[in-house]
Amino acid sequence: MDLTILAPIGAVAALVYALYLAKKVTSADEGTDAMKKISKSIREGANAYLKRQYKTVAVVFVVLIIVFAVLAAIGQVNVFVPVAFLTGGVFSALSGYFGMKIATAANARTAHAAQTSLNSGLKVAFSAGAVMGFTVVGLGLLDTSIWYYILKFVYGDNAQQIASAMVTFGMGASTMALFARVGGGIFTKAADVGADLVGKVEAGIPEDDPRNPAVIADNVGDNVGDVAGMGADLYESYAGARLSAMALGVSAGLGFTGIMVPMALCALGIFASIIGSFFVKTEEGADQKKLLGSLRKGTYISSALVVVAAFALIKLTGLDIGFFFAIISGLLAGVLIGYFTEYYTSDSYKPTRDLAGTSETGSATLIIGGLALGMKSTAIPVIIIGVAVMASYVLSGGMADMALGLYGVALAAVGMLSTLGITLATDAYGPVADNAGGIAEMAGLGEEVRKRTDALDSLGNTTAATGKGFAIGSAALTALALVASYIDQVKLIDPNFVLKMDIMNPPVLIGLMVGAMLPFIFAALTMESVGRAAQSIVVEVRRQFKTIKGLMEGTAEADYHSCVDLCTKSALHEMIAPAILAIVVPIVVGLVLGVSGVTGMLAGATASGFVLAVMMSNSGGAWDNAKKYIEAGNLGGKGSNNHKAAVVGDTVGDPFKDTSGPAINILIKLLSVVSIVFAAVVINVHLF
Amino acid sequence: MDLTILAPIGAVAALVYALYLAKKVTSADEGTDAMKKISKSIREGANAYLKRQYKTVAVVFVVLIIVFAVLAAIGQVNVFVPVAFLTGGVFSALSGYFGMKIATAANARTAHAAQTSLNSGLKVAFSAGAVMGFTVVGLGLLDTSIWYYILKFVYGDNAQQIASAMVTFGMGASTMALFARVGGGIFTKAADVGADLVGKVEAGIPEDDPRNPAVIADNVGDNVGDVAGMGADLYESYAGARLSAMALGVSAGLGFTGIMVPMALCALGIFASIIGSFFVKTEEGADQKKLLGSLRKGTYISSALVVVAAFALIKLTGLDIGFFFAIISGLLAGVLIGYFTEYYTSDSYKPTRDLAGTSETGSATLIIGGLALGMKSTAIPVIIIGVAVMASYVLSGGMADMALGLYGVALAAVGMLSTLGITLATDAYGPVADNAGGIAEMAGLGEEVRKRTDALDSLGNTTAATGKGFAIGSAALTALALVASYIDQVKLIDPNFVLKMDIMNPPVLIGLMVGAMLPFIFAALTMESVGRAAQSIVVEVRRQFKTIKGLMEGTAEADYHSCVDLCTKSALHEMIAPAILAIVVPIVVGLVLGVSGVTGMLAGATASGFVLAVMMSNSGGAWDNAKKYIEAGNLGGKGSNNHKAAVVGDTVGDPFKDTSGPAINILIKLLSVVSIVFAAVVINVHLF
Repeated sequence: MDLTILAPIGAVAALVYALYLAKKVTSADEGTDAMKKISKSIREGANAYLKRQYKTVAVVFVVLIIVFAVLAAIGQVNVFVPVAFLTGGVFSALSGYFGMKIATAANARTAHAAQTSLNSGLKVAFSAGAVMGFTVVGLGLLDTSIWYYILKFVYGDNAQQIASAMVTFGMGASTMALFARVGGGIFTKAADVGADLVGKVEAGIPEDDPRNPAVIADNVGDNVGDVAGMGADLYESYAGARLSAMALGVSAGLGFTGIMVPMALCALGIFASIIGSFFVKTEEGADQKKLLGSLRKGTYISSALVVVAAFALIKLTGLDIGFFFAIISGLLAGVLIGYFTEYYTSDSYKPTRDLAGTSETGSATLIIGGLALGMKSTAIPVIIIGVAVMASYVLSGGMADMALGLYGVALAAVGMLSTLGITLATDAYGPVADNAGGIAEMAGLGEEVRKRTDALDSLGNTTAATGKGFAIGSAALTALALVASYIDQVKLIDPNFVLKMDIMNPPVLIGLMVGAMLPFIFAALTMESVGRAAQSIVVEVRRQFKTIKGLMEGTAEADYHSCVDLCTKSALHEMIAPAILAIVVPIVVGLVLGVSGVTGMLAGATASGFVLAVMMSNSGGAWDNAKKYIEAGNLGGKGSNNHKAAVVGDTVGDPFKDTSGPAINILIKLLSVVSIVFAAVVINVHLF
Repeated sequence: MDLTILAPIGAVAALVYALYLAKKVTSADEGTDAMKKISKSIREGANAYLKRQYKTVAVVFVVLIIVFAVLAAIGQVNVFVPVAFLTGGVFSALSGYFGMKIATAANARTAHAAQTSLNSGLKVAFSAGAVMGFTVVGLGLLDTSIWYYILKFVYGDNAQQIASAMVTFGMGASTMALFARVGGGIFTKAADVGADLVGKVEAGIPEDDPRNPAVIADNVGDNVGDVAGMGADLYESYAGARLSAMALGVSAGLGFTGIMVPMALCALGIFASIIGSFFVKTEEGADQKKLLGSLRKGTYISSALVVVAAFALIKLTGLDIGFFFAIISGLLAGVLIGYFTEYYTSDSYKPTRDLAGTSETGSATLIIGGLALGMKSTAIPVIIIGVAVMASYVLSGGMADMALGLYGVALAAVGMLSTLGITLATDAYGPVADNAGGIAEMAGLGEEVRKRTDALDSLGNTTAATGKGFAIGSAALTALALVASYIDQVKLIDPNFVLKMDIMNPPVLIGLMVGAMLPFIFAALTMESVGRAAQSIVVEVRRQFKTIKGLMEGTAEADYHSCVDLCTKSALHEMIAPAILAIVVPIVVGLVLGVSGVTGMLAGATASGFVLAVMMSNSGGAWDNAKKYIEAGNLGGKGSNNHKAAVVGDTVGDPFKDTSGPAINILIKLLSVVSIVFAAVVINVHLF
């Protein structure tokens, strides 16, 4: 039975549902004039940033499209690559654009709705998050569907040709994702750190205080980093996992069925996510745990539905039932990684509470403690991914036929990402709630409202942590699938090519070491970028405090725009170097060490990148929550020496969890995608 | 021509030379009664620690020897393994014991000699370091020589049998090294951090102030960590590189010549080091640069001599000249890594000066800056090792015959370590000078003397940094050689065993991820250990300040012994968990994922461990020197806010550079050695 048609149907359904939710959100009231004004500033800042980001990225895209056009002309890449590169980039950019558009429209509305009840606030914020989630999956699956039918029309019944062309189409989304994640990550943390260093630490004014000139930039940052950046990251995983699964399915000898299963699975996941999203609601006075339960309910129901649907899908296609178990193992791994991320970073559990305790002997011991916590927290995710890979491989029949097993691994990645619509909704909900809290503070809404937005915001921190775990886990699994696709691609391009992938072959070994190093370099570059950008904000905020008369007294207004502008410039300037690194290194490694070297590099980068990303995210999350735990009145509370130590930890953790850690996700996927696209070039030209 | 006999001759020469130097050191005057007393306290503390450390380790050795005896009885390991395990451990322990014995005898003598002139001080300290250096290489090569002749007697002309038995003999030294490095590392940093946190920060008394109860423990720590620990680490590399080269040489079809070359090369390196050591001297008033030049002269002359000797050796044995270049590439890589380590961590260069500048915005930015610096500094060492591996592989004929190439890589490791006698002397010189400075301070020697010991100590910091770089580089190269030997060993045990080392084979891939994670877990465990141990010192020092009347006024004496005792107990207690992890994990991975999984794990741990160790060492070194740079009067100098921020960085860096970073060296080698020893078991019993 040909179920491929489900894909465009699912894609359109997701987009229609997103549109419906967007209408619902925008029809809500924005509240007082003060709220409208603040929201407008944030919106304008975010739009201005995105506009200029897209302009900068456009230059890179033009250059790369020319490169691809030349390569296509000399037969080194598929002729459709230049155009597909463009559509992938544009669709990914559009997801970010729509997601942010609605998020910045929803912040004041969430604050206003919270004046009515907690549930109303939750509904608005979650709906806004869902717009982002369903736009990402809708556009992602639409892009794949359109290209599939175009190529089907061109290549007819040659499944191999279709699938192996399509796997090179992921680079547009990956390149866009890199810029969105890195640029957004630098923007958000530069604004956050800069605002805190001068406002909280030097001037002693509270967070989100309207007198702080960087306060709007900080709120803009939440949107460009946590909404647009996160969306682009998962758009890429979603595309990468599906495309590599399609290619590996065909290589495993499953023909069009191999292509159909991942596409249909994504569609089924969309339907499941839509249904699940209806179950997200809460009651007044719900505590943190209950609120979390409301969101989880949606995700769990969606997951359960996917299980049923996946079973039906595998049965209907007549494939071995083992593939069903492969899908489930991916789905389960995603849930488990999210859970353990929460365990390590939430102040409801021992690790973060113990970490807060290390503040007793000062910031140095707290830093050591946080780093150690992050490092230790890598064990369980590695084991989870390891078990998921082994299970999906073995259950899909990999012991008898490696190709089947690798298809199983790729399906596990697709399975994990199938419910992305709702997972991402839960995730993108966070910055909306965070912004709503900021607006409530700045607009001086009552105690009760602030309490409600605080509850929503605090929940957002938890979902952000689990979301990050999920993003890393899916990136790792996707990267593995992409590495498998790379090798596959090499075999297809030159069937006589002798692959020397023995791990003791020096090019593999050296590639492995270079790969293991890359995430460290990438993390260093992005951390330094945040440092430099924050420094420029510090200077600007200090300048405004000094030169604008009446600012501290509240009689004059700060120049918010200049801070937003500064963050924008810094972020765009700083994202170039890491981006070039990520695109150039796999090509250089290929030209020097050949295919073996590239394979080693990809494996090394995936392994060490996964571990480093988990560590950085969890260290950062734990420091953040250790600080919040102390602020809640524990260990001396706000203003105590313990709190001062915790603030240092939080500041170190900011670029860890929101810039460098997430950027590594993109890095490990992009390295594979670039390698796939340039495979033919490397096969023809290499030193060793 | 059979040059194997050079090995025992070289070994004995090294030991005789060490004895001669030891006599020379101990015949020097120890100075005033006060100096004698302080030195005695340090000596007693160090001896007490070592004694108890050996006792604890003895228990582990007894257990492991029983395990090996059982395995030998059922034919799963070579019959000599139980005894060889013991000799390796005992010889390694003896090196540490003698090295520390002489270091603790030389500290007061160095201080006293510094009263005469700078050169006299340098001579005593360097001679003490050289005793350590030559004891390590002497005993190491002696162990190998003795076993070689025993096995030659037993197995006759079967080079294969001799070499493959001997490669399993490294585990004794490795196990001992692990305990020495981890235990010593925890001891030294617990004492250092504990003494600083209460003494410098809380009570405001200077470093090395005799009123601080932890001051003796701090000085003891320099000896047990930087002398005994470092010695054991390099003893292990020295043995591992040589043994794996011997095994790979035979596998490459070179027979006894393959065994002879690494053994003779080590002997030639000893002679070269002895000659080089005569060139280490300086003149009065020499500045930092000149002093460094004096030490470097010795190393460079030794290296040059080895180049000549290696050329003659390869020519005489009739091997391809490519092997000579392989040796040179290793030697060169060692020098280069040392140089770049200095570049990244010395305050004479831009990176550390820039890092000091980040203290302007507080400790958080300094921490971020230091982490980024360490991460960035990993690129060059990875490239250096990569080039060395590729060069030695290709030049040895690896492109035509992989076995020859791998022998070349192992020879590069031996080449790098051939001048260990003098490299280690330069390295072990540091803690002696450091102790001498402490004694000069505590015994109240004059301004002039203190200035001289400061110059010697400051030089020691530089040599410690380059020494660490060298230790990591040689550990990485040795680990790679050991991984090659592991695969070799598997093939020998079961010639029909089908090796699936394809990097996309899931067990390899999962092993890779587990391996990449292990150094992080190891670093976390050791960092936490330091934290806990330092905490107990803090409590004890506070207690003494409170309860001992007249301590702060200098009328009563502190109870130094209790702090030494506490550090000893903590270190011995805390070293158990990481040690068990390092021994058990490779066995568990083998039992679950089989030989493929083990291979992946070893490659992953080597790649990620190398990168992480370089990062941690260099971050730590840079923080330390950024603090010293500020203390020298830059950026506000001592007592400024910048200085306070720098102290936080230094404290975080302490376990980085002296505990966790170096411990990773051992981890990556030990994992390989354990895998080699248990290869037969894993071949017979494994899940996948």
